[in-house]
Amino acid sequence: MGGNDVRELVDRLLAGEVPALARAITWIENEDERGIAALDALYPLTGNAYRVGISGPPGAGKSTLVDTLTERLLDAGKTVGIIAVDPTSPFTGGALLGDRIRMRGLGTRDGVFIRSMATRGGLGGLSRSAPSVAAAMDAFGHDYVIFETVGVGQSELDIADAADTTVIVLVPESGDSIQAMKAGLMEIGEIFVVNKADRDGADTTVQEITSMLALRDQGGGWSPPVLRTIASTGEGVAELAGTIEKHREFLSSRGLLTERRRAHFIAQLREIVVAELEKDLYTRLGAGAELGSFVGDVSKGHRSPYQIAREVLDGVVRDRRS
Amino acid sequence: MGGNDVRELVDRLLAGEVPALARAITWIENEDERGIAALDALYPLTGNAYRVGISGPPGAGKSTLVDTLTERLLDAGKTVGIIAVDPTSPFTGGALLGDRIRMRGLGTRDGVFIRSMATRGGLGGLSRSAPSVAAAMDAFGHDYVIFETVGVGQSELDIADAADTTVIVLVPESGDSIQAMKAGLMEIGEIFVVNKADRDGADTTVQEITSMLALRDQGGGWSPPVLRTIASTGEGVAELAGTIEKHREFLSSRGLLTERRRAHFIAQLREIVVAELEKDLYTRLGAGAELGSFVGDVSKGHRSPYQIAREVLDGVVRDRRS
Repeated sequence: MGGNDVRELVDRLLAGEVPALARAITWIENEDERGIAALDALYPLTGNAYRVGISGPPGAGKSTLVDTLTERLLDAGKTVGIIAVDPTSPFTGGALLGDRIRMRGLGTRDGVFIRSMATRGGLGGLSRSAPSVAAAMDAFGHDYVIFETVGVGQSELDIADAADTTVIVLVPESGDSIQAMKAGLMEIGEIFVVNKADRDGADTTVQEITSMLALRDQGGGWSPPVLRTIASTGEGVAELAGTIEKHREFLSSRGLLTERRRAHFIAQLREIVVAELEKDLYTRLGAGAELGSFVGDVSKGHRSPYQIAREVLDGVVRDRRS
Repeated sequence: MGGNDVRELVDRLLAGEVPALARAITWIENEDERGIAALDALYPLTGNAYRVGISGPPGAGKSTLVDTLTERLLDAGKTVGIIAVDPTSPFTGGALLGDRIRMRGLGTRDGVFIRSMATRGGLGGLSRSAPSVAAAMDAFGHDYVIFETVGVGQSELDIADAADTTVIVLVPESGDSIQAMKAGLMEIGEIFVVNKADRDGADTTVQEITSMLALRDQGGGWSPPVLRTIASTGEGVAELAGTIEKHREFLSSRGLLTERRRAHFIAQLREIVVAELEKDLYTRLGAGAELGSFVGDVSKGHRSPYQIAREVLDGVVRDRRS
């Protein structure tokens, strides 16, 4: 079952070999047996990396901001793993992901490892695998793991379910903050950044975000600051790094960091359990059997899906339980 | 178990009483037993309504376009149900949803029924319940059901998994079409609309979309047209309505409509089955038991979630199967 392969890879990963980390991540992403075995060995060695989620609407300059922030962390002697979640379509996916990595000046610096993960195509289940990829980076020794996602609507990876600190990036644009609110971003952000702050309307945007945050329940004791950055020149990025540290200290000092990580871990566990239950169902349905075989003609009125679901479950699962 | 209530409500719904439809939809959204019983009665009466999905980035003018398109359909003597999916945050949700409905001039016209559904908060599972809400509208007698969603990233309701025809709305803005591609929208659209087409850059945007579509696999035999609209004045909306009809005829004439609806139905069935399996697991875990009880201290290195998932499933589910 490749046990030796796995042990060898884990040893190399723990010795700091980057290709071993890359290989392990591929296994983990694919939920390959070897990836799962590697995780058994790696999880006990995690807990050191700080996880930062950076999200916002398309075009807000998230990648540039992540790059600039990472440069800063590297300059300070830290190491960084970046997980760039790309909701790219399969038909152009590969090329785009490749381009993105090439485009990043960071790729050649020591101490940084960038991994793009696509939300479409593949085996799905980003919310199962992205936190595990972060765990591999953590065990490898990265001081920070940064998740970068397009956050509009409920993306497959809910960044607030994976990060210790969630940063929302917006730009000064008429209605952008309203749209962010509609997309649920105002609720999950712990730090807000108005990027491209040299543009017209930056003051208005900061003002709008501040007003909207006033509506929010402040029960937690943390008032989300609203910062300004110009990612392309690096302006404001030092302050962002400092504010992330402040939030980290806030969480740690109140025991909230462990609490939050526990909740995230349980959410991930739930995803894995549900996926297993489903696999199990298909196994029980028998070789070649699919849900489709329970569905008749749908060209005209037909049975309710709840009715059919009862039939599937009563016949196959519940029967065998007794 | 409220069987009489359900029968009475279904009768009233089928007699065309709008409040009965509204009540049934609430039950369905909540996956209330009565909603599920109502669906058993309603699904056999579905199959007439044509389902149109309208998606695009925030701020593209989707609501206005949906309103104008609906006006046109109403003028032609058709009836329309609208399902507006709002990824609104819970803390402002109610107000925003209410405003949206009030803001729509349509609310007072006969033959249209608007329902907002929020992706956050509540019991979740939009991809289970939204198609069922559409089924209730279908059985009620609506000629069209329009799903309106913010489509960036993988939203909880994948519009292409619910609609017969998927329309993607963009605006002339630098990089908007690139962003749409990154968000996976280029892949699912069957009709593209450049809204606010009186703005600078409309030609460029149409050109960009057309070039990107050229990359797409054209295997299906339908080349997605790229239209221009100004939703606020109604310009181009007649052409959009005509193009939707053309796509409908394309699907029907090749038997693709039934095939597509079958695939969507199976996807919904799968969601329901998986949710049931999960409920079942919690029942078996016993009163008060939660996944969290399997998770120890996570403040430092700890076991892999896959390992814990095996423990949960081996102990509780697989044991009882034998």
